[in-house]
Amino acid sequence: MHAITIPEPGGPEALVWGEVPDPVPGEGEVLVEVAASAVNRADILQRQGFYNPPPGASPYPGLECSGRVAALGPGVSGWSVGDEVCALLAGGGYAEKVAVPAGQLLPLPKGLDLKQAAALPEVVSTVWSNVFMIAHLRPGETLLVHGGSSGIGTMAIQLAKAVGAKVAVTAGTREKLERCAELGADILVNYREQDFVEEVRKATGGAGADVILDNMGAKYLDRNVNALAVNGRLAIIGMQGGVKAELNISTLLTKRAAISATSLRARPLGEKAAIVAAVREHVWPLIDAGQVRPIVDREIPMSDADTAHRVVEESGHIGKVLLVAP
Amino acid sequence: MHAITIPEPGGPEALVWGEVPDPVPGEGEVLVEVAASAVNRADILQRQGFYNPPPGASPYPGLECSGRVAALGPGVSGWSVGDEVCALLAGGGYAEKVAVPAGQLLPLPKGLDLKQAAALPEVVSTVWSNVFMIAHLRPGETLLVHGGSSGIGTMAIQLAKAVGAKVAVTAGTREKLERCAELGADILVNYREQDFVEEVRKATGGAGADVILDNMGAKYLDRNVNALAVNGRLAIIGMQGGVKAELNISTLLTKRAAISATSLRARPLGEKAAIVAAVREHVWPLIDAGQVRPIVDREIPMSDADTAHRVVEESGHIGKVLLVAP
Repeated sequence: MHAITIPEPGGPEALVWGEVPDPVPGEGEVLVEVAASAVNRADILQRQGFYNPPPGASPYPGLECSGRVAALGPGVSGWSVGDEVCALLAGGGYAEKVAVPAGQLLPLPKGLDLKQAAALPEVVSTVWSNVFMIAHLRPGETLLVHGGSSGIGTMAIQLAKAVGAKVAVTAGTREKLERCAELGADILVNYREQDFVEEVRKATGGAGADVILDNMGAKYLDRNVNALAVNGRLAIIGMQGGVKAELNISTLLTKRAAISATSLRARPLGEKAAIVAAVREHVWPLIDAGQVRPIVDREIPMSDADTAHRVVEESGHIGKVLLVAP
Repeated sequence: MHAITIPEPGGPEALVWGEVPDPVPGEGEVLVEVAASAVNRADILQRQGFYNPPPGASPYPGLECSGRVAALGPGVSGWSVGDEVCALLAGGGYAEKVAVPAGQLLPLPKGLDLKQAAALPEVVSTVWSNVFMIAHLRPGETLLVHGGSSGIGTMAIQLAKAVGAKVAVTAGTREKLERCAELGADILVNYREQDFVEEVRKATGGAGADVILDNMGAKYLDRNVNALAVNGRLAIIGMQGGVKAELNISTLLTKRAAISATSLRARPLGEKAAIVAAVREHVWPLIDAGQVRPIVDREIPMSDADTAHRVVEESGHIGKVLLVAP
């Protein structure tokens, strides 16, 4: 088969579409013939040599895909050859085929194009596990999402609105904020021109955000803690703004607040399967009903993954950038 | 009545035993004739002028007491004059009488001396709400408690052992560590001579602590994060080692770990009542059965509260220092 390989870490040109051996599904795994994958920030870090795949994972990038079941490994039940699926991956999505633990498969939601479903697994699993399973966002509470127009952001807005929460977003352009508003965002903050701490406070009668979903890490830590409400929960899922920052424990304690930081990729199989099962139970019905949908910026041929990486690195996109298999 | 007042903030001598007006129980409150109170670190901060009572609270120090119900305010049911009780307070325990919201009362546990029960409310509520309600310590997990011989520490050891967890403690002397061991602590770390990160790792096969109960704040933040296991939870309840420190978000994220920081005193009545109700349901049966007990260092007359504060400030005590009403 063909896959995107990274012979040497580097810029987008480091991504090379080449011939590689077919994966073989192991015990409990399913072989998926890939229809599409999608770009995540972690793929860019992997391309740059900063994020090695966890032990046992495919060496090729790609943390999610959609496609058809092509073969079943030993001990798999509940899936059949030909099933249309999407899947959360530990790697290997940028390829014509990928072997996936069965617990990370999800059925194609009703009425959805097979390629578009590749936009779902990583963002839905990340948002559901952080905002709902860890931070327990409740109806009537306020969620602040940084990067509201990203793949994660567009899904977080929709899921939070679906459970009856109020949603604040940050983004860097008026166009992006307008797209967030179309998806239901109530409070729009242009981070280039406004202070999100101030804006969120104003819009919540001084209370602040009950939950913050953050991809910036160090750069926003202090402001995020300041923007939290009493009993607030900050869920960090990325460190685009650096790794180390000063934490004011007194502010955190006065607010009785909490900070969590997680990633999906390194979780053991059992935890991933539990998240995917929760997603199937709680989120899939919303997608089946058309209440929540994948937001796709554009589709790019998988062999042109370098182009897709450039698009994401320039942050001009809204939602997910798909990589379509040949 | 008499109470300990603080005419001017300062050292232990700032505590003045004087005549003050009797408190009057308001709607939903109970008047307790105090048998004993106990010293908490927060009382020392209040004496020094660094921790004002929350709005509506008594101006006198004292976050817990035991005693007899002397009168019921309007709208109180479930309690009768003469009942022997102990109570979580927002202040006012260093006094002959105190008015308490009924939701913060607990019955005197079976077989316990009325004075000794004053050692329970603050430590049991703090440990239960942090280690169990927030950090969800589970059987088989490892809890690290800093200051294992403190009032909080001695209760945390006992409760964690009662649910089947493994317990590591830090303390500054061999005598204190021996007392922790008698209470059930499995891993003993003398923080003056040993590195707790290293010792906890060694004793857990490299895994680290699943939950850490911390009273040091800034000084221990980085080491606490390093001592956490994957999926670990750091619960901060004090800042004896300062307020601001650098947080390594990458370490937190790699471990999928969480940090919470809380205090009891400023919580609204509903939250305090919920914690006290959980304590009554989950902890009181263990105390009734004699499986968990208050650890009392000594009893000091309430009018000599300055002496009691000196004892606690010198950290020579093990467990709680009681203040006995005349």
